[in-house]
Amino acid sequence: MARRIVIIGANASGVDAASAARKKDRTAEITLVTQEKTAGYSRCGLPFVIGGHIAEFKDLVVYPPAFFQMQKLNLCLETKATAINTKDKTVTVQTKDGATEVLPYDSLVIATGADSFMPPIKGREKQGILSLRGIEDGERIDAAVKAGAKSAVIMGAGLIGLELGVGLMERGLKVTIVEMLPQILPQLLDADMAKLVQQHLEEKSMQILLNKSVEEFLGDDKVTAIKAGGEVIEADVFISAFGVRASTKLATDAGIPLGETRAIKTNSRMETEVKDVYAVGDCAEAPNIITHKPVCPQLGTVAVRMGKVGGANAAGDYSLFGGVLASAVTRLFEIEAGNTGLTETAAQRNRIEVVTGAISSKTRADYYPGATPIKVKLVVEKESQRIIGAQIVGGEEVTQRINCISFAIQKGMTIRELAKADTAYAPPLNETWEPMVLAAEMVLMKFR
Amino acid sequence: MARRIVIIGANASGVDAASAARKKDRTAEITLVTQEKTAGYSRCGLPFVIGGHIAEFKDLVVYPPAFFQMQKLNLCLETKATAINTKDKTVTVQTKDGATEVLPYDSLVIATGADSFMPPIKGREKQGILSLRGIEDGERIDAAVKAGAKSAVIMGAGLIGLELGVGLMERGLKVTIVEMLPQILPQLLDADMAKLVQQHLEEKSMQILLNKSVEEFLGDDKVTAIKAGGEVIEADVFISAFGVRASTKLATDAGIPLGETRAIKTNSRMETEVKDVYAVGDCAEAPNIITHKPVCPQLGTVAVRMGKVGGANAAGDYSLFGGVLASAVTRLFEIEAGNTGLTETAAQRNRIEVVTGAISSKTRADYYPGATPIKVKLVVEKESQRIIGAQIVGGEEVTQRINCISFAIQKGMTIRELAKADTAYAPPLNETWEPMVLAAEMVLMKFR
Repeated sequence: MARRIVIIGANASGVDAASAARKKDRTAEITLVTQEKTAGYSRCGLPFVIGGHIAEFKDLVVYPPAFFQMQKLNLCLETKATAINTKDKTVTVQTKDGATEVLPYDSLVIATGADSFMPPIKGREKQGILSLRGIEDGERIDAAVKAGAKSAVIMGAGLIGLELGVGLMERGLKVTIVEMLPQILPQLLDADMAKLVQQHLEEKSMQILLNKSVEEFLGDDKVTAIKAGGEVIEADVFISAFGVRASTKLATDAGIPLGETRAIKTNSRMETEVKDVYAVGDCAEAPNIITHKPVCPQLGTVAVRMGKVGGANAAGDYSLFGGVLASAVTRLFEIEAGNTGLTETAAQRNRIEVVTGAISSKTRADYYPGATPIKVKLVVEKESQRIIGAQIVGGEEVTQRINCISFAIQKGMTIRELAKADTAYAPPLNETWEPMVLAAEMVLMKFR
Repeated sequence: MARRIVIIGANASGVDAASAARKKDRTAEITLVTQEKTAGYSRCGLPFVIGGHIAEFKDLVVYPPAFFQMQKLNLCLETKATAINTKDKTVTVQTKDGATEVLPYDSLVIATGADSFMPPIKGREKQGILSLRGIEDGERIDAAVKAGAKSAVIMGAGLIGLELGVGLMERGLKVTIVEMLPQILPQLLDADMAKLVQQHLEEKSMQILLNKSVEEFLGDDKVTAIKAGGEVIEADVFISAFGVRASTKLATDAGIPLGETRAIKTNSRMETEVKDVYAVGDCAEAPNIITHKPVCPQLGTVAVRMGKVGGANAAGDYSLFGGVLASAVTRLFEIEAGNTGLTETAAQRNRIEVVTGAISSKTRADYYPGATPIKVKLVVEKESQRIIGAQIVGGEEVTQRINCISFAIQKGMTIRELAKADTAYAPPLNETWEPMVLAAEMVLMKFR
């Protein structure tokens, strides 16, 4: 009998899991269930549709219906998984028309993703607090802009909050970011590097309020202002970008254990504590490559990598997930910012003694037109002299530099090795002395 | 008594040697001698001045006179080193005004660079054959363009030939490239990857003639046409871009041995076979990191790295040069092409059994505007499964991907590790599945 694989969730990790499962097992019955109307789209693209760079939300669909047909994947849209029974090996679902069905499985992949998180703030039951997680959320924000909104308050200065803020400014709105912490992008960057990004955003007229907790949503039925740090801020649109939390209710109801990050606990094959049940994507945790502690970075690249491993294993393969560095990057107006490995702050939190160094350079030869500033900060474990993190902020070519350091970390490169590394150069493309190499020298000087 | 360091040559490697020597020894008497009128400029920038991207040749000066003053470096311009005496430890020079001086040294750094190479072609003594090595060469080409040249023949389809060809086309000239080999960029790329670059250049109306040796320079005193592959090609400007050869006459006259590449033989401290004499830059050889055989890649990045090591050692430091991968990159119109490590052809020449794989992808999320094609080819040593080379051709973000693979090679990353690597992503900046990772999967499939 054909192997039955059920996958709950049909975006980044779910679809990659299905695809990997199909590659391993050509005859398996693979079923994906999702509550959403659309499957296989890129969440990461949502802010750029709102910003007007991409014409329509449906353009974000990376895996169209034809893909599912071609791969012989049974895709159930607008279908809510309501229960998992790990003893009988079934998933109960409620279809679009309200019918209940029970899907038996040989292998189950939980790819339920994450939900926007709303802290217990007074008045949060009021209407008009939007968030950005799926296409329908995006459509709501887009509709508000089209209805003539002139200003927005975004609560949270993480990647989604800032990318959305830029998108709304590109549509002509006045945007105020309210962040509880003393810096923007606290997961991605140390305060010194975040400051560079903040300056750029402020030059573009984004209003950024730090050290301000949202205390209350004001208005009658509908929110018309927030109170934050004692200040009342009015706006036409209110966006909750406090962060996301792994969607784990289905798993916990079924007795599938969570890990210390409150995401679903997995082993190196992305299998949960329950046999034949895998968890991948934003709902699952995996070890950090440096600390070996479980983390849940909730990034698209991590989700697809997890999906591929979990899906292959669900189809009988033996595939290992090597852990995460949580390499991430963003573009905000004309500035790019990225991180790989641990920030200095994260290293300290993990009680790793580090030496750091940073340099400012240019993205092209100094004499070549269009050169923009770039700053590289390296975080190095003192004892081993190994690189364990890098943050880069610059006008161009940041992403692949982050990947350079990601590869270096994954292979245990020491700061001495980076300081002598062989790099490529051409005047229109970078400086003769690669900024990463110069940053390594700055760190090395502190070891002498 | 202060240590006396003499450096012959005052561009990339010479200046970096001086700077490193000064860093190590604050009191050394450091003298740089160069035949040129200008020191400390970027040769790599010359084609871009000709192309009109940079206003003037003097803008290429990266180290202005103030730098030499500040670092207390004695810079002798228009001064020709005529002899080295390694027994007496002196360098004889002829100054601008014809006077002969003898400079004693404790340490000598030979950074004489390379010269344009002209094969023994009939008629090569005729006037009007230009080349592009220094600022004065560039000024001659620029003058020809300003004098109304409408067409150019460039002999050689290496980096300099093509970059200069693009520059001349940007100035409105019709450009014909004549190359003896069956492909362009033979040092940088395998034929399959070179074809992509060639197509782009041809779309831009560059005429490229392959498999054609230059047989004769035609014309009376001055060249008016060349004969290549039996065909007569007329033009207003003729550029010799056959390649460069290490400038070693001074060294060989002094009994300093060359290595198997016909460049000056060095040890891992960039010291020649003669004590206290160092050789760095385009005139010196160094081991390839993969084959451990000496090579002489004559690249700016290699030159500065060699200079730094040789200069430090000349000042009494103990600094090792880790060898070269010869990572290189270029931008030609709207296409970037780069290489690190061995091409498939070079691997075969070195009798290394390899498995290769390539994929075509996009430089941004498929739905994001401005995404351009990118192709990644990986070369993997069959026995060890280690990556030993990569070639990338694409519309953007090629350079740092080359550096990614360069770091991977330097740290012995296997193709399996690359296929599972943690990478950063954002829709405006790259695809969720990084093309390098996808290329690794293509290779891995051949191992199964």
